[in-house]
Amino acid sequence: MNNYKMIIAYDGSRYKGWQRLGNGENSIQEKIETVLSRLLNTEIQIIGSGRTDAGVHARGQVANFHCKKRLDVDAFLNEVNRYLPEDIGVQSLEMVDEDFHARFSAKTKIYRYYIVNQAVHNPFVRKYALHIPEPLDIEAMQEAAAMVIGEHDFTTFTNAKSKKKSMVRRLDRLDIFFEGEYLIFEFEGNGFLHNMVRRLTGTLIQVGLEQIKPAAMGSYLKAQDRHKVTYIAEGKGLFLESVAYDD
Amino acid sequence: MNNYKMIIAYDGSRYKGWQRLGNGENSIQEKIETVLSRLLNTEIQIIGSGRTDAGVHARGQVANFHCKKRLDVDAFLNEVNRYLPEDIGVQSLEMVDEDFHARFSAKTKIYRYYIVNQAVHNPFVRKYALHIPEPLDIEAMQEAAAMVIGEHDFTTFTNAKSKKKSMVRRLDRLDIFFEGEYLIFEFEGNGFLHNMVRRLTGTLIQVGLEQIKPAAMGSYLKAQDRHKVTYIAEGKGLFLESVAYDD
Repeated sequence: MNNYKMIIAYDGSRYKGWQRLGNGENSIQEKIETVLSRLLNTEIQIIGSGRTDAGVHARGQVANFHCKKRLDVDAFLNEVNRYLPEDIGVQSLEMVDEDFHARFSAKTKIYRYYIVNQAVHNPFVRKYALHIPEPLDIEAMQEAAAMVIGEHDFTTFTNAKSKKKSMVRRLDRLDIFFEGEYLIFEFEGNGFLHNMVRRLTGTLIQVGLEQIKPAAMGSYLKAQDRHKVTYIAEGKGLFLESVAYDD
Repeated sequence: MNNYKMIIAYDGSRYKGWQRLGNGENSIQEKIETVLSRLLNTEIQIIGSGRTDAGVHARGQVANFHCKKRLDVDAFLNEVNRYLPEDIGVQSLEMVDEDFHARFSAKTKIYRYYIVNQAVHNPFVRKYALHIPEPLDIEAMQEAAAMVIGEHDFTTFTNAKSKKKSMVRRLDRLDIFFEGEYLIFEFEGNGFLHNMVRRLTGTLIQVGLEQIKPAAMGSYLKAQDRHKVTYIAEGKGLFLESVAYDD
């Protein structure tokens, strides 16, 4: 079997999320599997690097699939994009080692949360950024962000409730900076729990609005209690930017 | 009467265009007039710098309106944006001379046409740029563009059929350049006929694709015959960027 790796961009606005749910709900995985299966005339299952929630976007989601056929990758990439809806675009396609697995082989991921922090909103990014008209205290947010860097139990910052699975993740970076008209929170780490970026972002915004002190971030984390988080930032500002693998 | 000038950004995707048509069709003018009339408790009519077509966007449309009430412009701007749909945003509001007229006082306008000239489309700008996967000959397009600079009768490049109104306009610039992932055609002139930018753009694209020679642009212009133009570029890539006035 040949193994193919895809890098995928999508506008998540009208989807229930990445994952195929099998109940007929609109998912990005299902749209791609349907096109691949039709073009290859056999049922294709794709393995994503991880799920993204309803309304969350990706510029660099990674997925792989196996098929018997040896593909002309450039021609096949064009075919796939021709049949996909316009809000999903496969950016690249390449053959990889048979043991490459988009989820298990992933080393780190980068997520970005986009904020338009101006009095007036920008109509062109209304689905791609959160509009916050009030001033934000950048230094206070950076002080709070520093408290969650490193390896921690992120129970406070996830909706997941499993008692069996580890809630320990390593957050390598949480940078807060301006780029053009955007205020960006950039997260890099070895893995992210369900809703983790949106919960961290919501709490950072509360710090920026001076609703809570920067130190709250540290005490929330230590509490290992998800009820501490009272504001989960909307999915629409969140992008899975890239997934890194060895080599 | 006080006279107020607004700079307006809008995503034209779901509108029939700027102009109120009085037949219940969705127009940007109507959305703004409805909000202003409600907030000011009297019927307000706004004067735009000019029309934009269905699906065409604006970052810097200008309009003015008269009202008896003296407005607190910052507070009123926030109120207006609160009630407008998310795809329309008034960027600024200021009091101006009583004789300011958004259309008659306009000196020059800048339009931009955005193209994504890459093999793979970008899902996030599918409503804001035209995707052309084939290579485009930039120099040939620039050579063609130079032929329409200056004051000319632009009958060839408009849908308008009036025999009474002058089709003479002055095109000051038609620059073709890359900015980030976009290929941009930037038009500056003292006025634009209906569909003029989209007809010029369509013809330039045909030159870029080597379907016609650069010299065709000049002979089309001289012919003063709108049937020469066989490709009118889609509205979705077009933005009214700004309108300039004296002072």
